[in-house]
Amino acid sequence: MKVLYIFAHPEPKSFNAAMKDTALAALKEKGHEVKLSDLYAMEFNPILKASDFPDRKNPDFFNPFLEAIKASKTGAFSPDIKEEMEKVRWADLLIFQFPIYFTAMPALMKGWIDRVLAPGFGFNPVTNSAYDTGLFKVKSAMLAFTAGAPKEVYSEGGAHGDIYRHLESITHCVFEYMGMKVLPSFMVFEAGNMSGERGDEELEKYRQRISEL
Amino acid sequence: MKVLYIFAHPEPKSFNAAMKDTALAALKEKGHEVKLSDLYAMEFNPILKASDFPDRKNPDFFNPFLEAIKASKTGAFSPDIKEEMEKVRWADLLIFQFPIYFTAMPALMKGWIDRVLAPGFGFNPVTNSAYDTGLFKVKSAMLAFTAGAPKEVYSEGGAHGDIYRHLESITHCVFEYMGMKVLPSFMVFEAGNMSGERGDEELEKYRQRISEL
Repeated sequence: MKVLYIFAHPEPKSFNAAMKDTALAALKEKGHEVKLSDLYAMEFNPILKASDFPDRKNPDFFNPFLEAIKASKTGAFSPDIKEEMEKVRWADLLIFQFPIYFTAMPALMKGWIDRVLAPGFGFNPVTNSAYDTGLFKVKSAMLAFTAGAPKEVYSEGGAHGDIYRHLESITHCVFEYMGMKVLPSFMVFEAGNMSGERGDEELEKYRQRISEL
Repeated sequence: MKVLYIFAHPEPKSFNAAMKDTALAALKEKGHEVKLSDLYAMEFNPILKASDFPDRKNPDFFNPFLEAIKASKTGAFSPDIKEEMEKVRWADLLIFQFPIYFTAMPALMKGWIDRVLAPGFGFNPVTNSAYDTGLFKVKSAMLAFTAGAPKEVYSEGGAHGDIYRHLESITHCVFEYMGMKVLPSFMVFEAGNMSGERGDEELEKYRQRISEL
């Protein structure tokens, strides 16, 4: 299997980085081909902007949606977007790993989605029924994340509400929107306050989970 | 009233920009004091990173959460964050206006939240009951946004699901988390495909709504 691993954490010695290294090793051990987009290390730019489209349909008025549809036909995206699109095209499975900030992805990773999974590339924006006609029907996607809060806070009746509800904006409205199969998320709660022992246990759980993909 | 208007759209001639201008004019006409954070115009950096904290608690290992708690006590945030924090302290009401990308805020605006509304600044991270002890209890907050999809797509049973569910990550898990009162969101659906006449109607609705704050 071809796996694109998209990762966003600013500290190379963090638990998140250890999760990433654990997953990459487990994937390679199983014989999968792996490409990594380490968004902090790459200094990926998360801001959707006019220069994303070097051959503008309308140079006087920037409509990101219409420019993306045109660029999806001609391939005229900026080089950093094109590079990521190539990895997505290549991959059978996309894994997104990140620490939750305010019940959602860090801006850096949201920006990868905003810019790379463009209209016309991941979904057909004209049909008005993208869920049925998503262009990534043969791919799968999975989230792996850490959260500072305990699991109870992210449960129905908990202060933040059910974690699955928060994930839907990605799992349903991005992954399923593009026709991808969604694999169960791997979640580590109370990640800010872990003993070394619990950290090791969570890494081992993650290694096993990744080995079974 | 003191209003901080946080805005993210890349095109100064867009409908979103017209909404922003309409709101700012209506607020000033009513005698409110207004500050604007136009995130594209400011070239605001949405990426949470080590240099956000010029006086590191631990220079060898970057833990964003612990660094933010320390910086909230000493004030040692990077200048761009400090400037935004000053505006937030000053404001009675925060209005966030943006185009929806993938059922959520653009990365640029999410990054403003990630970096500016730091642990220790907007909420007390130690109590484990931030919803009860939010530090912005005297403030209010409001969302104003455009979405490409029709309202039906964002309703219960619609393809994306209820818009209020998607907004909760912000209205509940950010605004209410910090003790802020949430004002009803102003929403414009099918914004990519508006006649000039409908555009004018929506702007007039927004002007009225803002005038009644």
